[in-house]
Amino acid sequence: MPARERLLVVALDLFAEHGVSGTSPQMIADRLGVTKAAVHSEFPTMDDLALAVIAPALDRLGEVADEAESQRGHAARVESVLAGVVQLVVDYRKMAATLGFDPVVVRLVRAHPALRDLQRIRRLLGGFAPDPGSRVRMAVIAGGLMMAGADPAVAGLDNEDFHDHLLAAGRRILRG
Amino acid sequence: MPARERLLVVALDLFAEHGVSGTSPQMIADRLGVTKAAVHSEFPTMDDLALAVIAPALDRLGEVADEAESQRGHAARVESVLAGVVQLVVDYRKMAATLGFDPVVVRLVRAHPALRDLQRIRRLLGGFAPDPGSRVRMAVIAGGLMMAGADPAVAGLDNEDFHDHLLAAGRRILRG
Repeated sequence: MPARERLLVVALDLFAEHGVSGTSPQMIADRLGVTKAAVHSEFPTMDDLALAVIAPALDRLGEVADEAESQRGHAARVESVLAGVVQLVVDYRKMAATLGFDPVVVRLVRAHPALRDLQRIRRLLGGFAPDPGSRVRMAVIAGGLMMAGADPAVAGLDNEDFHDHLLAAGRRILRG
Repeated sequence: MPARERLLVVALDLFAEHGVSGTSPQMIADRLGVTKAAVHSEFPTMDDLALAVIAPALDRLGEVADEAESQRGHAARVESVLAGVVQLVVDYRKMAATLGFDPVVVRLVRAHPALRDLQRIRRLLGGFAPDPGSRVRMAVIAGGLMMAGADPAVAGLDNEDFHDHLLAAGRRILRG
């Protein structure tokens, strides 16, 4: 694995264990067996590093929203966005909980262009609907799908099983 | 509000904004307009403070599990534990996301006597069932209920509406 990739993998592990705020360049350097200066030269600030860790997942949000919005009819759009989010959670299983909750990540996403895509996804799932039931269901799905990846109860499942059961759980919440 | 209570309220606000790792005694002192020494004399370490913040919620877990286990039949036990967890999330709406994800809190809970009660609740919700579908549903419910309290989409709902829609969403996931 190239040095930069290894750094991102180690950083994500440490973020999951300690939060972004609780992770220092020195901790990353120690785990990689490199100097702190080497970490700094690749990523001058922890914000730069956190953004680099989450970028691949954020980059996918636009595709998920585009695909869903291209469907005809409300039901097809909801099914499409749910399938897209579930696939994203499975592909970034280890990252999803950090992405959804870590206060530093939340702050970075709020200032990121992908925020618009995230809002489109939330809208498709009912997050801006006038009725409170739809908004609560969206909040439960959003939180539930993202946190499930970090739950020890499902750690042993392979990606295919995890995917199928996650999709089924999402459909249960959303079906009328 | 007594000084200790005010300190706990301010600490929780800061934990939600910055994570426990990202919160310092100085930040708490600044927001309260007291000295750092005053914070230290009440709570010598940040672990002590974090434990004091989450203690009231953790103390309720045992009652929720007891009440559910006293019911006759699987369906009644599941309904009881779901109702208990939903009420807990509503009562500690602002705290639930921090409680469920913050890496420092997760570490503290792992060493806390309430961990046994949490495991009983997870068992009642299917977290140790042999079939992967039950375990994924438990993970989605656990994450979804806890994260929903922090979601801006439901921030405007009063506790009663939030409670009823949260319970309905939980039942949708759990029903066979």
